[in-house]
Amino acid sequence: MHSSVHKLPIGVLGASGYAGRELCSLIAAHPRLELAFATANAQAGKSIHVPFAGDVRFIESEQAPLGDAALVFSALPHGASKIWVERAAAAGAKVVDLSNDLRIGSDGGGIPYGLTELRRDQVRTARIVANPGCYPTTTMLGLLPLLEQGLVRGGATIAVNAASGVTGAGLTPRVDLLFGEVTENFRAYGVGNTHRHLNEMRALCAELGSDVDLLFTPHLLPVARGILATMTVPLAEPLADAMAPWRRRYGGERFVELSAGPPELRDVVRRNVIRIYATMAAHVRAPTLLVFAATDNLVKGAAGQALQNANLMLGLDEALGLPC
Amino acid sequence: MHSSVHKLPIGVLGASGYAGRELCSLIAAHPRLELAFATANAQAGKSIHVPFAGDVRFIESEQAPLGDAALVFSALPHGASKIWVERAAAAGAKVVDLSNDLRIGSDGGGIPYGLTELRRDQVRTARIVANPGCYPTTTMLGLLPLLEQGLVRGGATIAVNAASGVTGAGLTPRVDLLFGEVTENFRAYGVGNTHRHLNEMRALCAELGSDVDLLFTPHLLPVARGILATMTVPLAEPLADAMAPWRRRYGGERFVELSAGPPELRDVVRRNVIRIYATMAAHVRAPTLLVFAATDNLVKGAAGQALQNANLMLGLDEALGLPC
Amino acid sequence: MHSSVHKLPIGVLGASGYAGRELCSLIAAHPRLELAFATANAQAGKSIHVPFAGDVRFIESEQAPLGDAALVFSALPHGASKIWVERAAAAGAKVVDLSNDLRIGSDGGGIPYGLTELRRDQVRTARIVANPGCYPTTTMLGLLPLLEQGLVRGGATIAVNAASGVTGAGLTPRVDLLFGEVTENFRAYGVGNTHRHLNEMRALCAELGSDVDLLFTPHLLPVARGILATMTVPLAEPLADAMAPWRRRYGGERFVELSAGPPELRDVVRRNVIRIYATMAAHVRAPTLLVFAATDNLVKGAAGQALQNANLMLGLDEALGLPC
Amino acid sequence: MHSSVHKLPIGVLGASGYAGRELCSLIAAHPRLELAFATANAQAGKSIHVPFAGDVRFIESEQAPLGDAALVFSALPHGASKIWVERAAAAGAKVVDLSNDLRIGSDGGGIPYGLTELRRDQVRTARIVANPGCYPTTTMLGLLPLLEQGLVRGGATIAVNAASGVTGAGLTPRVDLLFGEVTENFRAYGVGNTHRHLNEMRALCAELGSDVDLLFTPHLLPVARGILATMTVPLAEPLADAMAPWRRRYGGERFVELSAGPPELRDVVRRNVIRIYATMAAHVRAPTLLVFAATDNLVKGAAGQALQNANLMLGLDEALGLPC
Repeated sequence: MHSSVHKLPIGVLGASGYAGRELCSLIAAHPRLELAFATANAQAGKSIHVPFAGDVRFIESEQAPLGDAALVFSALPHGASKIWVERAAAAGAKVVDLSNDLRIGSDGGGIPYGLTELRRDQVRTARIVANPGCYPTTTMLGLLPLLEQGLVRGGATIAVNAASGVTGAGLTPRVDLLFGEVTENFRAYGVGNTHRHLNEMRALCAELGSDVDLLFTPHLLPVARGILATMTVPLAEPLADAMAPWRRRYGGERFVELSAGPPELRDVVRRNVIRIYATMAAHVRAPTLLVFAATDNLVKGAAGQALQNANLMLGLDEALGLPC
Repeated sequence: MHSSVHKLPIGVLGASGYAGRELCSLIAAHPRLELAFATANAQAGKSIHVPFAGDVRFIESEQAPLGDAALVFSALPHGASKIWVERAAAAGAKVVDLSNDLRIGSDGGGIPYGLTELRRDQVRTARIVANPGCYPTTTMLGLLPLLEQGLVRGGATIAVNAASGVTGAGLTPRVDLLFGEVTENFRAYGVGNTHRHLNEMRALCAELGSDVDLLFTPHLLPVARGILATMTVPLAEPLADAMAPWRRRYGGERFVELSAGPPELRDVVRRNVIRIYATMAAHVRAPTLLVFAATDNLVKGAAGQALQNANLMLGLDEALGLPC
Repeated sequence: MHSSVHKLPIGVLGASGYAGRELCSLIAAHPRLELAFATANAQAGKSIHVPFAGDVRFIESEQAPLGDAALVFSALPHGASKIWVERAAAAGAKVVDLSNDLRIGSDGGGIPYGLTELRRDQVRTARIVANPGCYPTTTMLGLLPLLEQGLVRGGATIAVNAASGVTGAGLTPRVDLLFGEVTENFRAYGVGNTHRHLNEMRALCAELGSDVDLLFTPHLLPVARGILATMTVPLAEPLADAMAPWRRRYGGERFVELSAGPPELRDVVRRNVIRIYATMAAHVRAPTLLVFAATDNLVKGAAGQALQNANLMLGLDEALGLPC
Repeated sequence: MHSSVHKLPIGVLGASGYAGRELCSLIAAHPRLELAFATANAQAGKSIHVPFAGDVRFIESEQAPLGDAALVFSALPHGASKIWVERAAAAGAKVVDLSNDLRIGSDGGGIPYGLTELRRDQVRTARIVANPGCYPTTTMLGLLPLLEQGLVRGGATIAVNAASGVTGAGLTPRVDLLFGEVTENFRAYGVGNTHRHLNEMRALCAELGSDVDLLFTPHLLPVARGILATMTVPLAEPLADAMAPWRRRYGGERFVELSAGPPELRDVVRRNVIRIYATMAAHVRAPTLLVFAATDNLVKGAAGQALQNANLMLGLDEALGLPC
């Protein structure tokens, strides 16, 4: 369909998981990129049907021609990714790393953090980008205008209640992720403010110069995809126009949608967007803002944002090939 | 199976909805009660198969022999219930009203509020009881020990994020409750602290002498049954033993379970229990407690608690016939 | 993204239902089409967010500038569509009618039946096309090679057991389609070979010169989208290569996929394809073939096939803008 | 609640899986039985909350005091069960084996097959009973009246299309049973008439003297519990009263329900019943009956029927403690 245009060869490391497959699908639909290789050690040698990407043949990471790729996405597991990011970079490829190995708050050593709407300029010139986690993307893009504009009450605790679909936990055979255990169920996990994504969010708050405390409580939803964050934010002063901070901050952004009411998962799934809504709380004495933010954890929260960053790194239109 | 025992005749007004059917099922399994009549004006004359209750034949409310019943449950819609509660009481029946017509915060005129674990003594001698809503049951039983023991920071805002299954919205043909609109979706509603259940919860806080503000945000889950409330509570001082307030308060309670970790919906569905867990939040400067409470909105949050109250009003063991 | 190309104006009548919204989304993603108007009488004057199509503003059908459109899709209800198809055609637009008003087996009067893979040549030159139903598309494309190649045992009964997601029943507020009634449930409906789609399938069998009897039993699945048909076919003789009839028939087809095992709904949802698998039954004396066919009822079973037909009618590449 | 009655001690081997947990719940609710021990080697030493059974403490099978139990249920995996059945029997306990190790069609050596409604008299006096599989229970109880009454066309093939919830596959961490893989999906498996349950059904047909061929195709439903079998039965002659064979056969049966229309999963889940409906097919020349049968795979299809058999073996009322 896009036959005659020259396409850039792209590699995907760790392509058999949910984020990896999503990357393969996005690359297949992209007018300027094509899949050069896809690795998955446990499934090396097999072809697997990936909707929208056709039959994808997996090879071992060791066999991957890293140097042939203009850009490599690493969707390898946390801990296993860093070494491959370095190998791909050494072979001359640009790299977007979807693991948390190199994100802020880790010892990533100054690798640009690919929260695109915040760090677009750094991403554009980077050779390696650390792609944010799904919860941090949703939470921090949701709170960014308040933090940057100094609207949160000093030293306050922001309660972030987030709920995610099961693909956020990856394609691993865990008993507690079986259909029979998740359907008609709902539960919190990582309670007590101990989730591993917290580090990344706290580090970003610090970089932004904010002294807020985040209290983050994730929940597991009986859905495949999507994250909704419901955030309770103590304000320094009431806001007459609750949505004004987001309109000011995200005016020209193509992947940020301000909605007229609370966003729903179905408005964002399979799309590279975050939808945000905010409203003042009635019947409480302390001025308090409720902020709602929704994303697809596999798209804007992972593969989509990774491709958004890749587009910038490759000098392409940031929105090219991204579903929205 | 319980053949030779004398059974008390029980009426159900508004029996064709979710709570009404649940009442019919519970009555059918109860060793000392039997269904005398079930009304449903729109379905009058029809028999409908209700699992665990067999084929239930509905009559019109106007045809119901109110005076023949030892006790009548009203599961009629809000607004339509009050007049029937009065008629059943005038006919000599005891009444448990599941609507919000007579609850605290309404102009119910001093009708006992059937949050059983709080008002057991009043319920025992009452001729009419106003059965609490599903969200207030879950929230207020969850917070009760903190409020009674004065552990919340003075004037603080407690953020209550609750998520409920769709049966909470009743058996009404609304487009936004269709399977195709709810599956793989999740959304907040009644946002901005405006939900109609708030009144009931605020009135109860006031009766308990607490000056806290509740900030209540409900969400719609893609499940049939169950409510999970995740509550962020600013404390006056840190708690060394986060579960101690609940152990103290609910020691002998048969329908309150303290769990070793965050409760899940599947632990409570179809059971007349509330499961509660609490833990201090790490990494925040202000001492903050996270409280999780789960119920089945149709059982402990409606029909089960109604039967618990009815057992007391009829001089029976409070737990008789209740699944747990 | 496809900015400079001239785009053809397309109208959608009855755009607020599931098929209508899917049409809006497909048109928005199409490189050569653009939405000229979308009608929905009950929602006229409102804008509704349709994922991938943005905010769609609905007008009344009476206000629709039918003559400005190169082609009009009618997704109006059965019975209400025919008159609008005629008005749009009279105004000079080509029309694809998604209702069953004009399909074979009705008194449509020779309107080409848009089962594209069977009637491509008629569609290409038609001014009006009757788009097949979702069940007939899945069933008949699945059986076509067997019928055309005379492989079914003469006079035999083919048992077609099909299961569909709830969007097949449309966006109508029926109690039996509520989430609480469909989740964790499964049931047959239209039993006894009485489903209204049967007429369409029987008429097509007759046109193909086949004397088979179809015994069609639909079921309602707790999923939003997708149809799986499991078909038991008595054969004249055993087939040594069970997939050969499909390979022969569908060699060059871009929207027919032959799979290596039984197709799953998730392989076809949101894609304009049918996936087919066939295998001989072991342990039975009469030679019997099992045929499995899966589609997305809203795409290949409705809006996608409608667009496939529209592409042909407009002289475009049949596959243009179709997700696969 | 049932305090003063003497209760019989019951053991459960392999208690941590779905059927094992269901057994623990049923025993806890039973007025004359109590749990003596529950084994689960991988979880030995742990207590797990089982709804309706409370906290169940697991021990190793080797530690189980088999001889102290009046009856032992084995819910051990196929292949691993037989040796423990023999050990429990040797220790003096009666045994109901839920595995397929000893069922007809295996080399079980004449152990009574506990399809209760067919083999009640043998079960009553048995010391060991082989409990039927979930699919065979649903299929064979559904077809029994037709087979016994000689109504099926001689030598015909009965097409059995069955769909089951995921708990039928047990509590094993398989990737294809993850929530993310099953939600919004539907697929056939074991296609080509090769499912391992077929053997059991064919053996039973042979014992009944029937010469029919069964063509069995199972499907995986996105629900936790329940089986629906849709069966296409060629008849020797048309039936004027399609339900008559079932009324004749199952007149006094307490766990067989004949429904007025196609049975739904929600009518049978958590209940020890099979619901059956039959109707003649219109528009086909060969007289053909459609038979629909639904059960809960964990109750009537496993733990419930096992308890029904145990009641008989222990000289209790067959229905005691069984939800219906």
